[in-house]
Amino acid sequence: MTHQKLYEGKAKILYSTKTENILLSVFKDDATAFNAQKRGTIPGKGAMNCTIASHLFRQLETAGIPTHFIEQVSDAEMQVKAVTIIPLEVVIRNVAAGSLCKQTGLELGTLISPPLVEFYYKNDELGDPLLTRDRLLLMKLATPEQVDQLAAMALKINDILTHFFQECGITLVDFKLEFGLDHQQQVILADEISPDTCRLWNQSETDPSRRVMDKDRFRNNLGEIESAYQLVMQRVLAHSI
Amino acid sequence: MTHQKLYEGKAKILYSTKTENILLSVFKDDATAFNAQKRGTIPGKGAMNCTIASHLFRQLETAGIPTHFIEQVSDAEMQVKAVTIIPLEVVIRNVAAGSLCKQTGLELGTLISPPLVEFYYKNDELGDPLLTRDRLLLMKLATPEQVDQLAAMALKINDILTHFFQECGITLVDFKLEFGLDHQQQVILADEISPDTCRLWNQSETDPSRRVMDKDRFRNNLGEIESAYQLVMQRVLAHSI
Repeated sequence: MTHQKLYEGKAKILYSTKTENILLSVFKDDATAFNAQKRGTIPGKGAMNCTIASHLFRQLETAGIPTHFIEQVSDAEMQVKAVTIIPLEVVIRNVAAGSLCKQTGLELGTLISPPLVEFYYKNDELGDPLLTRDRLLLMKLATPEQVDQLAAMALKINDILTHFFQECGITLVDFKLEFGLDHQQQVILADEISPDTCRLWNQSETDPSRRVMDKDRFRNNLGEIESAYQLVMQRVLAHSI
Repeated sequence: MTHQKLYEGKAKILYSTKTENILLSVFKDDATAFNAQKRGTIPGKGAMNCTIASHLFRQLETAGIPTHFIEQVSDAEMQVKAVTIIPLEVVIRNVAAGSLCKQTGLELGTLISPPLVEFYYKNDELGDPLLTRDRLLLMKLATPEQVDQLAAMALKINDILTHFFQECGITLVDFKLEFGLDHQQQVILADEISPDTCRLWNQSETDPSRRVMDKDRFRNNLGEIESAYQLVMQRVLAHSI
């Protein structure tokens, strides 16, 4: 194998493969939060997130959502289609949490219906700032048609995943998506969907700190991170759409 | 006179008057920046801003924009209609500067055409955060119709003021407006328009620090604040639409 490292992010490394337009995504155990001001390791996270994301990408493909997923080739390795990432983080919010509460004063847990679709500039140096639609267009980060397409895809994905997680006894509070353009310039879902990129609340827990099954356990020092990720993986693998 | 203090803000104090629905707005020399983390005094600012704002409100009224302005009753005192303030700061940007540059990486001085109309939540505790249209509606800070009306009024005001300041040899870079509902529930322009609330660049100066004629001289310790405000006042008073 002649894998060349193309890009190392905070949670994954991308390698070339011998096949054009196919990359290997290796999921790391490294965890970061607050724009990498907090750093740590969650043992087994790479394998769990790769497995969860693979299962979810498969479900989404079945439901008609184009993704970069090809196949999970080992515990923490996924073959994906090469894309040019659109430098936007698309966040879908069903329940108020995180920066939304901090910035608006909305109470944690407030139901948001219809869901909010928000765009953030994927730029660590600037701290991934919230974008208005007008700012996004002014910065030429996407065309108006792409913005509409991304919002529509995000809402469709939210619909599918909200129902899926409901079946798992988990509330999909909010989550972040990234999209890219494949070699045919088609917009497809990229990156990952995992407890690193979603807020997931266990419906069988009522205590606000016990219900958390996602990276907020790491962000907010709630402990029992691996077991929470493990429980997400078990429930996700036990369900299909 | 039986004036009762109703509200004290960072730059103005509002008093009741003996007439219902009419208030007295007294402009202070106090200056604050960065959400009041920086504080100071600019001698004569109250009188200059009251005079500039009075002249601009008169121009806008003539051009068909309803405002809270009644009359300037002394150097630093303005009679205004009582309004219920809509808790939004409406910012219009013709040229990139300030927080827009910090948050987006856009270069200072980049022309923005068509102009950006942005909404910020008027809330000191939360640091006056930028709002998307969806967040604004979710928070019920205004109705969709009010948002459209505010944006349309802001653009019309920008049109009038951009031309007015152009006549004065001044570039209207960006500015902040506040609106309120009068006792008949009509949306009218309130607060003030002055070098405290606008970025104004002297067109006869090319040096980036010398051209500044507004509160950025205070924010960024550029000195010669009073003389800059004085020059704005002189030029504004010498022109009418």
